[in-house]
Amino acid sequence: MSYQAPEAFANVTAACKANIYFDGKVVSHTLTLADGSRKTLGLIYPGLYKFNTGAPEKMEIIAGACRARIAGNVDWIGFTAGTWFDVPGNSFFEIEVTDGVAEYVCSFC
Amino acid sequence: MSYQAPEAFANVTAACKANIYFDGKVVSHTLTLADGSRKTLGLIYPGLYKFNTGAPEKMEIIAGACRARIAGNVDWIGFTAGTWFDVPGNSFFEIEVTDGVAEYVCSFC
Repeated sequence: MSYQAPEAFANVTAACKANIYFDGKVVSHTLTLADGSRKTLGLIYPGLYKFNTGAPEKMEIIAGACRARIAGNVDWIGFTAGTWFDVPGNSFFEIEVTDGVAEYVCSFC
Repeated sequence: MSYQAPEAFANVTAACKANIYFDGKVVSHTLTLADGSRKTLGLIYPGLYKFNTGAPEKMEIIAGACRARIAGNVDWIGFTAGTWFDVPGNSFFEIEVTDGVAEYVCSFC
């Protein structure tokens, strides 16, 4: 079964104020879906960032490229548009963009 | 009558792919409202940018600060969170951010 990155989310409430991390190097806007679940639409500028998770997260790469190291794994894995990775809850991941802007959808599960 | 900047838009379709201008110095996500009208939720990093308009646009500043010069006016006007300006259709505006990140909602009328 092939995976396809989402193109749009219908019937959502979009918050006007962005979430701004690392002096604006990582930014996102929050969507609340009809079932109450949350997603963020985000952009990552070049740099290396560490994020802690509360709920488990699914990171889908919409455009650009990045690499990620999940929950303290030794290995970095590269991700490009149309790929995704899961992060366990109460854990963390590191994500690095070296060139351009990576775009993502983060889903909180 | 006092103006209040919008906090969220309900019942919209949010596009996952961002709009990226000026090498990522200006970015936004597009919302399509139930009536078919469009808004973008955006961020502007430091710099001076010129945008041409097709439809008339309303720019509401959600956070941060900027100054704008509309449709070739001589004077720059400063805008902070909770203020807004209109741009005529088939015209242009220049917008400058000197520090931090300015956040906006742009409505296409």
